[in-house]
Amino acid sequence: MLVRFAGLGLGAATLTTVAAASGNSNVDVLTSSPDVSSFMAEPVTPLSTLVKDKDDMKVKMEMLIMKIQADFCRALENEEDPSKKFIVDRWTRAEGGGGVTCVIQNGKTFEKAGVNVSVVHGILPVDAVRQMKARGKELIGKELPFFAAGISSVIHPSNPHVPTVHFNYRYFEVTQENGEKMWWFGGGTDLTPYYLVEEDVRHFHSTLKNACDQHDAGYYPKFKKWCDEYFLVSHRNECRGVGGIFFDDFEMHSQEDCFKFVKSCAESVIPSYVPLVKKHRNDPYTSAERDWQLLRRGRYVEFNLVYDRGTKFGLYTPGARIESILMSLPVYAKWEYMHSPSDGTPEAKLTEILKNPKEWI
Amino acid sequence: MLVRFAGLGLGAATLTTVAAASGNSNVDVLTSSPDVSSFMAEPVTPLSTLVKDKDDMKVKMEMLIMKIQADFCRALENEEDPSKKFIVDRWTRAEGGGGVTCVIQNGKTFEKAGVNVSVVHGILPVDAVRQMKARGKELIGKELPFFAAGISSVIHPSNPHVPTVHFNYRYFEVTQENGEKMWWFGGGTDLTPYYLVEEDVRHFHSTLKNACDQHDAGYYPKFKKWCDEYFLVSHRNECRGVGGIFFDDFEMHSQEDCFKFVKSCAESVIPSYVPLVKKHRNDPYTSAERDWQLLRRGRYVEFNLVYDRGTKFGLYTPGARIESILMSLPVYAKWEYMHSPSDGTPEAKLTEILKNPKEWI
Repeated sequence: MLVRFAGLGLGAATLTTVAAASGNSNVDVLTSSPDVSSFMAEPVTPLSTLVKDKDDMKVKMEMLIMKIQADFCRALENEEDPSKKFIVDRWTRAEGGGGVTCVIQNGKTFEKAGVNVSVVHGILPVDAVRQMKARGKELIGKELPFFAAGISSVIHPSNPHVPTVHFNYRYFEVTQENGEKMWWFGGGTDLTPYYLVEEDVRHFHSTLKNACDQHDAGYYPKFKKWCDEYFLVSHRNECRGVGGIFFDDFEMHSQEDCFKFVKSCAESVIPSYVPLVKKHRNDPYTSAERDWQLLRRGRYVEFNLVYDRGTKFGLYTPGARIESILMSLPVYAKWEYMHSPSDGTPEAKLTEILKNPKEWI
Repeated sequence: MLVRFAGLGLGAATLTTVAAASGNSNVDVLTSSPDVSSFMAEPVTPLSTLVKDKDDMKVKMEMLIMKIQADFCRALENEEDPSKKFIVDRWTRAEGGGGVTCVIQNGKTFEKAGVNVSVVHGILPVDAVRQMKARGKELIGKELPFFAAGISSVIHPSNPHVPTVHFNYRYFEVTQENGEKMWWFGGGTDLTPYYLVEEDVRHFHSTLKNACDQHDAGYYPKFKKWCDEYFLVSHRNECRGVGGIFFDDFEMHSQEDCFKFVKSCAESVIPSYVPLVKKHRNDPYTSAERDWQLLRRGRYVEFNLVYDRGTKFGLYTPGARIESILMSLPVYAKWEYMHSPSDGTPEAKLTEILKNPKEWI
C-alpha cells in the first residue's frame, strides 16, 4: 500500500495513517479494483467493500469524489510552484467514516487551496434533522441513521486578479423511523472575483451551463438563480460573488440520472476555473488591490461563518473534523469600519454587480 | 449645538448630522440638563425628554452609557498618538431610535477600537422574541414593543502584548401581549490576551470582583463562571479569552439596585483595562508574535460570527446598523490549516489556559 500512494504528496505523518488504516490483505483486491491508485490517498471505505458494492450509489459517489479531488488537486499543482504540493491528511471519524483533506497554504499561486472529501455515516443528531426539515425535507423521526459522501473545495489565490472558486457536491441517505430510506444529491460551483472581468465570468457560467444542458435545459436557469439567492450576505444585501449554480434536495429522477448530472457538474469545475488561474496568476497588482482582496475575503468569512449551511452543519455535528470544515477560510482577511469604494473605480464596479446579480449568458 | 460638540473628535460629516438632528430649541433645555456636554455626541433621545423623564430607567440608562462611552473613549485617546482621535458617527434608525458609534482605526496603540451606544425601540421581530424565549425569558406574544439601550465595545490593540477587551452593558424593556411590561439588564466585561501575564489577569479580575462585591459577594463567582461558559468557541473547545464577568436576565432586585450594580460594572472597565494598555503598549514584539495575534483574532472572529448573541441579534434585526455591529471585528485576522503552537512556548501556555479556564483570585 505504501508504494501505491508514495509520490502523491503524502507527508510522513499521513503515510503512517494510510499504512495503518489499510492492510496487506487489500493488495489483491486493489489489483482488480478500478483506478484508485491515482487518488490523493486511499479511499475512506475499505477497498474490498468498494469492489463488492461497486453498483451501490454510496460507493459510486465515493469513487467519483475521490477522482474529482485527485484531478482537481493535480490541475491546481500544475499552476503552482513545482516545489509546492498539496499536503494530504487522511482522517477517520470516531462516530463512523472519515475523509481526505488536501491543502496548499502560502503557495506562489494559491494562498490557500483546500479540497476535502468526506464519507461519513452514523446517527444524524436532532439539530441536523431539524435543519433539514426547516429546509423543506420531510423527515420522520428525531435521530436518524445517515450516510453522506461529499467533496468540498475553496481556492483562495494569492493574486487579486484571480477569482476565488468554491464547489461542493454531496450525496445523502437517511433512514427514517418508519424504515423508509431517502436519498438526495446537492451541490454547486460558484465564483468570487475581486475584480470583474466580464469575459471570464461568461466563460465560467457557460462551462457550467454546458454541463447542465447535457441533462436538462431548465437546470442552468433554475440553479443559477438558486445560487444567487443562496450565496447572499443578507446583512449587507450583497451576493458573495458572481454566482454559478447551486441545487439541493435533488432527487426528481432515477438515482443513476441524478448521479450523472452531478458527475457532469463536478467534471466541469476544472474547465470552468483553471483557465482563469492560468490567465491571471501572473498579472501585476498593487498593494491597494491586495488590500481590496483582503476586505472582500472578510465578507467571504462573514458568509461562511454566519450563513453557510455546510459550515454550520459541520460546526454543530459531533465528531466533525473542524480543520477540514474551516479550511474554507482564507489565510488573511480584513475588516475596515465604513469602507466603501470610490465611485467609478473597478472596486465600485464589482460592488455594483454583487448588489445586483445579472444574467451572464 | 455645534459649539457644544466641537472639539470632541467629530468629523465634518458627523457634525452635520448632529446639527441636523438637534434644533436651537434645545439650547435652553440643555443649559439646565445634566452633564451632556462631555458626551461624544448629542444623546439619541431629545434633550427635553431626557430632562422631563430623568427618573425613568430608559433615560437613566441612556445617560449612563453616554457618559461611560465618553469616559472610555477619552481614556483610550490618552494612550494613543495625539493626532489620532475617535471618529464619531451619530446615526438614527428608521424603525425607532439610533446611536453613537466611535471608532479609532489603524492607530499607533489601537489597531481598531470601537465603542458603540445604541438606544432603540420599536417592535421586536418574531425571531428575536424566539431567541429570548430560547434563552429562558418567558415572553407572551409574537411581535412585541421593546426598548433597548446598551453600550458595546471591543478594543483590538496593535501590540500583541496588549490584550483585547470587550464589554457590553444593556437595559431591555418589553411589553407583552397582555400589556405587562418586563425589564432586565445584561452585560459583562472580558479579556482576551495573546500572551498570558498572570499578574495582569489577576488585576483585571480583581477590579471586576471589587465592583461586584460592592453589591453582592455571590455575584463575582456566579458571573465569572457564566462568562467562561458563554465565551466558549465550542467547535474548538476553547474559551475566547481569560474571561471576566457575564450576566443576563438580571432583574432579581429593584430596578434601582440593578442599575446601580450595572453602573459599578461599567465604571470598572477603565480601571480594569487601561493600566494593561499603559503597561504594555510599548513592549517590543516580533513578527512571529504579531502572527500569533492575528491567528487568535481569527478565533475571535469565529466566536463573534458563529456564537455571539448580540451579533446574531443585530444581524437578524431589520434596520440594524451593520457597521456598528461588525466594528467588533479586527482589522486583520488570519487562519492557518492545522496550526498548533509548539510545546513549552508562551503560545502553548495561553492555549492551555483557554482550554482549561481557572480561578484567578
